Amino acid sequence: MKILVINPNISETVSELILSEAKRTALPDTTITMVTAPFGVAYIETPSEAVVGAFAMLQLLAEHHENHDAVVVAAFGDPGVIAAKEVLDIPVVGLTESALATAFLLGGRFAIVGISQRIGAWYEQTVNQLGLSSRMIGYRGLKQGFSSVHMVQNEARDILRDMCLSCIEQDGADSIILAGAPLAGLAREIECDIPVPLIDGVGSAIRMAETLARGNFAPRRVGSLSPPPTKPHRGLVGNISQLIGKE
Amino acid sequence: MKILVINPNISETVSELILSEAKRTALPDTTITMVTAPFGVAYIETPSEAVVGAFAMLQLLAEHHENHDAVVVAAFGDPGVIAAKEVLDIPVVGLTESALATAFLLGGRFAIVGISQRIGAWYEQTVNQLGLSSRMIGYRGLKQGFSSVHMVQNEARDILRDMCLSCIEQDGADSIILAGAPLAGLAREIECDIPVPLIDGVGSAIRMAETLARGNFAPRRVGSLSPPPTKPHRGLVGNISQLIGKE
Amino acid sequence: MKILVINPNISETVSELILSEAKRTALPDTTITMVTAPFGVAYIETPSEAVVGAFAMLQLLAEHHENHDAVVVAAFGDPGVIAAKEVLDIPVVGLTESALATAFLLGGRFAIVGISQRIGAWYEQTVNQLGLSSRMIGYRGLKQGFSSVHMVQNEARDILRDMCLSCIEQDGADSIILAGAPLAGLAREIECDIPVPLIDGVGSAIRMAETLARGNFAPRRVGSLSPPPTKPHRGLVGNISQLIGKE
Amino acid sequence: MKILVINPNISETVSELILSEAKRTALPDTTITMVTAPFGVAYIETPSEAVVGAFAMLQLLAEHHENHDAVVVAAFGDPGVIAAKEVLDIPVVGLTESALATAFLLGGRFAIVGISQRIGAWYEQTVNQLGLSSRMIGYRGLKQGFSSVHMVQNEARDILRDMCLSCIEQDGADSIILAGAPLAGLAREIECDIPVPLIDGVGSAIRMAETLARGNFAPRRVGSLSPPPTKPHRGLVGNISQLIGKE
Amino acid sequence: MKILVINPNISETVSELILSEAKRTALPDTTITMVTAPFGVAYIETPSEAVVGAFAMLQLLAEHHENHDAVVVAAFGDPGVIAAKEVLDIPVVGLTESALATAFLLGGRFAIVGISQRIGAWYEQTVNQLGLSSRMIGYRGLKQGFSSVHMVQNEARDILRDMCLSCIEQDGADSIILAGAPLAGLAREIECDIPVPLIDGVGSAIRMAETLARGNFAPRRVGSLSPPPTKPHRGLVGNISQLIGKE
Amino acid sequence: MKILVINPNISETVSELILSEAKRTALPDTTITMVTAPFGVAYIETPSEAVVGAFAMLQLLAEHHENHDAVVVAAFGDPGVIAAKEVLDIPVVGLTESALATAFLLGGRFAIVGISQRIGAWYEQTVNQLGLSSRMIGYRGLKQGFSSVHMVQNEARDILRDMCLSCIEQDGADSIILAGAPLAGLAREIECDIPVPLIDGVGSAIRMAETLARGNFAPRRVGSLSPPPTKPHRGLVGNISQLIGKE
Repeated sequence: MKILVINPNISETVSELILSEAKRTALPDTTITMVTAPFGVAYIETPSEAVVGAFAMLQLLAEHHENHDAVVVAAFGDPGVIAAKEVLDIPVVGLTESALATAFLLGGRFAIVGISQRIGAWYEQTVNQLGLSSRMIGYRGLKQGFSSVHMVQNEARDILRDMCLSCIEQDGADSIILAGAPLAGLAREIECDIPVPLIDGVGSAIRMAETLARGNFAPRRVGSLSPPPTKPHRGLVGNISQLIGKE
Repeated sequence: MKILVINPNISETVSELILSEAKRTALPDTTITMVTAPFGVAYIETPSEAVVGAFAMLQLLAEHHENHDAVVVAAFGDPGVIAAKEVLDIPVVGLTESALATAFLLGGRFAIVGISQRIGAWYEQTVNQLGLSSRMIGYRGLKQGFSSVHMVQNEARDILRDMCLSCIEQDGADSIILAGAPLAGLAREIECDIPVPLIDGVGSAIRMAETLARGNFAPRRVGSLSPPPTKPHRGLVGNISQLIGKE
Repeated sequence: MKILVINPNISETVSELILSEAKRTALPDTTITMVTAPFGVAYIETPSEAVVGAFAMLQLLAEHHENHDAVVVAAFGDPGVIAAKEVLDIPVVGLTESALATAFLLGGRFAIVGISQRIGAWYEQTVNQLGLSSRMIGYRGLKQGFSSVHMVQNEARDILRDMCLSCIEQDGADSIILAGAPLAGLAREIECDIPVPLIDGVGSAIRMAETLARGNFAPRRVGSLSPPPTKPHRGLVGNISQLIGKE
Repeated sequence: MKILVINPNISETVSELILSEAKRTALPDTTITMVTAPFGVAYIETPSEAVVGAFAMLQLLAEHHENHDAVVVAAFGDPGVIAAKEVLDIPVVGLTESALATAFLLGGRFAIVGISQRIGAWYEQTVNQLGLSSRMIGYRGLKQGFSSVHMVQNEARDILRDMCLSCIEQDGADSIILAGAPLAGLAREIECDIPVPLIDGVGSAIRMAETLARGNFAPRRVGSLSPPPTKPHRGLVGNISQLIGKE
Repeated sequence: MKILVINPNISETVSELILSEAKRTALPDTTITMVTAPFGVAYIETPSEAVVGAFAMLQLLAEHHENHDAVVVAAFGDPGVIAAKEVLDIPVVGLTESALATAFLLGGRFAIVGISQRIGAWYEQTVNQLGLSSRMIGYRGLKQGFSSVHMVQNEARDILRDMCLSCIEQDGADSIILAGAPLAGLAREIECDIPVPLIDGVGSAIRMAETLARGNFAPRRVGSLSPPPTKPHRGLVGNISQLIGKE
Repeated sequence: MKILVINPNISETVSELILSEAKRTALPDTTITMVTAPFGVAYIETPSEAVVGAFAMLQLLAEHHENHDAVVVAAFGDPGVIAAKEVLDIPVVGLTESALATAFLLGGRFAIVGISQRIGAWYEQTVNQLGLSSRMIGYRGLKQGFSSVHMVQNEARDILRDMCLSCIEQDGADSIILAGAPLAGLAREIECDIPVPLIDGVGSAIRMAETLARGNFAPRRVGSLSPPPTKPHRGLVGNISQLIGKE
C-alpha cells in the first residue's frame, strides 16, 4: 500500500518528525510518500493560516496523489480534508478525525493537549464540526513559546506531560490526544507516566488510512462528497483543475 | 462609509448582480468597492471549491482592504470569512451569517432556498458551524441546471418561487433566505407572492456591515479572533504576508 | 424613520439612560419615541417580574405603535418580544436578541456581564430559547447591591470592568455583552480598557431595528408568527384587543 | 390535600371540563379549587395570548393560593408556570411539564396531538425550553375549526383519534400526549382504539401536583427559583405585590 | 396497590434501607414487596457491574412481577429499566428517572450527589441517555471510602451535606438529587441545612410508580417498547423465557 | 495477532457468517477465535434481549479472553461493549462503534439499514449514546419476516439493496451501514449497485480491533473506564468474578 502524507505547512523539520512516526506506525508493506507545502506558515494555529494551508494542500494533492492508495493530511485541525475527500476516489484522512476515531473506539471522553493556547479554539471548532464535541472533555495548551516548532516536544516535554496529568485529574479524561504534527512521536516517550491511553495524531492517521484503504470502499458517485460538478473555472494553478471544475 | 465587497468567484456577471443589489441597499453615503476573484470557479457549491474561493478572497482582501470601513464576502457559505475577521480590525461579514442574523431577528424558523441540490449540504454545514441549526427548518434547491449562473434567477424564477411556497406550506418556515450571490435581488421580484419575509443575502450583508461599522467596536487584541501570531512563513502571494505570519 | 422604544419597567431614570444612548446611536433621520411602563418593577431579574413586564409592554405597544417603523423592547431578557413580533407588521427587536446578533456577526464566542447574580439564570434561558447557547461562553454578574438601578453603572464601574476582563482571561470571550438597560452607554466608557469588542444592548437594538426596517420585509401572513387568530376574548385592557383576539 | 387549579383563559366551559377530569383523577382526600381568568382569550394558541394568560394567572395565584398545598396551571404551554414556581413555596405544575414527566417515565418517545395547527409551534417551544425535545417525535394538530373550544373533543373525536394513529404508524410514537385543557378527559374515551399510552394533561398535572406535595420538599431559599428580590415597584394589581417586589 | 421493589444488588442491608424509605413514602393502601439480587455485587458503580445487576433484576422480575401493579428498580443508574418496561404491561420505574422527573417538575437545574467519584460517569451517561442533560448542572461524589455501603450515609453525613452546599453555592443548583439506594432516607435527615429541595431516589420512585399505576395507561401493543418479538431462544434461566422470546 | 470474536446470541449459523467475513477481512497474520453464546436469543432486537446478550457476552469474555490481543463483540447495538472495555486491558470494539468510526472517517452523513423495523429504535439509541447522532441521517429496516436469521441476507437481498438506494435518493446518505451480524458479507455482494460506500459491521470491527491493537495503547489505570473497584460480590458465574468485584 502507498500512502501520500501531506504536510500543509512549510516546516521540513516537522515533516521529518511526521515521516519518522509514519514509518514506525505503518504496516510492513506500506510505503510513505512525504511532501511539504512550498508556501505557507511554519504551523497552523488559526483559521486564516488554515485557509492558506488548505490551498497549499490541495495543490500538493493534485500533483502527487496518483498511484497512491490513501492520503493523510498531516496537520491537526484537518485543513481542507473534507475538500480532499470530495475530489479523490481514494480515502483521505486528517490527523484530527483519525485521533478522534481512535479516542471514540477506546471509549469514554477524551482531552486534547496542544502546543499553544491560541490553537485551542480552532481545534474545538474542528471537533464540533466533526460532530464529536459531546465526547471531548477539554483542551489544554502551552502558555510559553518555543525556539522552533519541531523542538517544542523536547523543550516542553515535562510541561506537556503535566498538562496530560491535569486533564486526567482535574477534567476526568479517559484518553488524551497529543495534538499537532509537531508532537508526533511524543506519546511513546511519555506514556509510561500517563495512566490513560495517549493518542498520537500521525500514528492514528496512518493506521486509519490503512484501515480505510483495506476496506476497498466503492467511490462516491452521488451525494455531498461525490466529485465536484463540472463548471466554468479559470486560473487554477498546478493540477487543481483536474480535481475541481474538471470535465 | 466605504465597503469592500469581494466576490470569491470568477463570474463578473454575478459581480454585477451583487453590485447592483449592494448599491440599491446601502445607506446614501456608503460607497461600494466591488472586486472579483482572478482565479477559481464560476460559483461555489462544495468544500473543495470553497478552499479555492477562500484563498482567492484572502488575496483580494490583502490587496484591497485599505481605506475601507467594512468588508462583505459575497458568497453564500461564507468561504474564509472567519479567517478574514481574524486578520482585519474592520468588520467582515459573510452572506450566510448576515442572512442568518436577519432571520434570527425576524423571529421563528427559517428555510434556505438555493440554486442546486448539491449546494445544500455545504449550506447546512455552514449554518451548523455558526451555531444556528436549531432555527433552520430545511433546505430546498433547484434540481435542473441553467445556462449560466447569472441567468438562474431569471430562468428558474417560477420554480424558485414555488420552492419558497413549499418551504412555508410543507415545512412551516417563518422566513426564507434566498441563498447565493446569483440570486441577489430576486427577493424584491417575488416577495409579493410569498406570505413570509424573503431575505436577500447581499442586501442583508450590506446592511449588517454598515451596522457593525457604525458600532465602532474596538478591535480584538486577544482571543481566538485576534490577529494571527507572528511566525515563520514563505511564499505568501500578493500581500497575504501582511495579514498572516507578519511581524 | 420612527422607532418606538419601550421600557417595560417603571424606572424613568433608566428610560433616560436608554433614550440618551438610543439618540447617540440612531441614524441622523431616525426619531425615537420613548415610553415607560406605568406599572411593574424597577428592573426585571426573574421570570415572575418578566410576566408583569411583558404585559405592561404589550399595553404600551397597543397604545403607541401607530405611525412607527420599528419597535425596541428595551429590557434584557426580551420580555414579550416574541409576542410583540407576532401582533405587529413592523419589526420588533429586544435587547438580548439584538446584542446576540451583533456578537454573532462579530464572530467567536461571547460572554454576558450583568447587574446581579440572580439575573444570570434568566439571561441564560433567553439565550437558550433563542438558540445561540453554543456561542455563549458564560455569565458574570455583580454580587453586591446598588443604591438605585440607574446608578449601578457609575457605582460599580470598576467591578464591571474587572468582570469583563475575567470573561476574557478566564473564560476566553471573543466579545462581551454588557447586559441590561441600566448599563446603556457603559460600553463607550470602558472600552479603552477591554481588548475585545464590548456590545451595548440599547445601541445594538437601535441599529438592528433600523436595519430590519430598512429591509422592508413583507409582513407575515401565515406561520407561527403571523397575527394571532380571531377568537372570543374578554376584558383586554387598553388597546390590547386590537392586537389579540381581534376580528 | 387542597389543590388550586387555575384556568388562565376566560372559558368557563373549559374550566368545567378541567374540574371534571381533575376530580376524577385526584386522590380521595384531595379537594380542588377551580378558578377561571377574568380577562383574556378563550384558549391560548400563541405567544401573545400567553403573555395575557400568564398575567391573569399570576393575579389569580396571588388572590387564591393561600391555604392550598399545590397549584396546577391548567393550560398547555405552561404560561407563567416558571414565574409561579418562583413566587410560591408550594409546588406549582403546568399541564405540559406534567404530561412530559409522565411520558418521560413511561419511556421511549412521545408525540403531541392538539387542537390547531397554529398551536404546534408554541408547544414545541415549550418542550424545547423544558429540555425534553430529544424525547419528542412530532406534533399533529387539527386543520379544521370548531364551533366552540369546549366542543372540539366531541366534534373532532374521530379526527383526533386518527391523528393519534398517524403519530404511531408514521412517526413511531411510544406514547401520545393529548394536549390542551379543551381535550381533558378525551384520553379515556378513545384509549381503547390506541395501541400505546394516551396521556391526559389535566390528569397528569393533578397526579404530579399530588406527588410533589406528598414529597414535602423544602422551599427554595437561594438560587434561580427562590422568591424574587425585594425592589421598587408600582401599580401591581390585586395581590401581585405580595408575590413580586415584596418586602 | 402492590409495588414490587427490586434491589439489583446483593446487599440485604441496603434493601432494608430501601424498604424503610419505601414504606415511609407510600400511600396508605400501598404494599411493598422487597426482593434482593441473589448474585452480583454490593452496589453498582460501573457499566460492567450494571450488566450483572440488569440480568439479576430481569430474573427477579420474571419470578416476582405477578400480582403487582408497578415495579421499582431500586438502583441509581436504572440498570435494565428500559428492558423491564418493555417486557411488562405494568409500569416500571428506576430511581434515576424518577428523581429526574421530580427535579424536572420542581423546576430549574439539578445537581446529583453520590457515594463515589467513580460512579459519577455512569450517572451522567444515564441522565444523557434519558435526554435531560441540559437540566443537570453537575455531579459531586465522595472521595473517601466507607466501611460498608449501608453505613455510608451515617459515616459521611457531614461531607455529603457539605457537597450539597457546594452544588448550590458553586454550581448554582436549584435542587439536589441524593443518588443511590444506599442514601435512601438521608434527604429527610439533612434537609433542614439545605436551602433548596433535596430529592430522594427511593421516595421519588415509589411516588412515581404510584402515579403511573393510578394513570391506568393502556399497555403498549406496538412501538419500540412493546413486548419483544417471539423468536428462537435457548437456556433462559428462571422465568425469563416468559418475558423474552416467548410465544 | 489473536482476536476473540463473541457472538452474544445463540445462532451458530450467524457465527459462521461472522467468522467467514472476519477471516476474509483480517490481516494475514491475524487469527480469529469465534465463540457463541450458550444461552439467549437468536438475534437481539430490543433492550431486554440486549440485557441477556450482554450478560452472556461477559461470561464468554471471562472464559475466553486470555491470550488474545483484542475482542470484537459481534452484535450491532454493542451489548455490553462499554462493560467489556472496562474489565479488560486489551481493546474491545463493538460492531456499531466500529461501523460508525468507519463512516465518520469516510465523511459526510451515514444511514443504517437493518433487518427489522423494531430494531431501529435500539440502533438509534446506541448511536445517540455514542455521541454521533448528528452524523446519522436515518434508519431503514425490513418490514417483512424471514425464515431464519442467517438466511435474511439471501432472502431479502433485493429489498435491502432497494432500501440502500432509498437512503441515498430520499435521505441523502453519503455512506450506508449494513447493520447486524446477520448481514455480514452482504456489502461485497451488492456494492456494485450502490453509488456510495457500503459499510460492513463485522469487517469494520475486525479492522478497527487490529488498528487499536497495533496502537499498543497503555491500559487505563484511572478514570471511568479503568477496572471496576474491588467490592463484596456473590454468585458471579463462570470467571466473571475475575473481572468484576475482584481483589
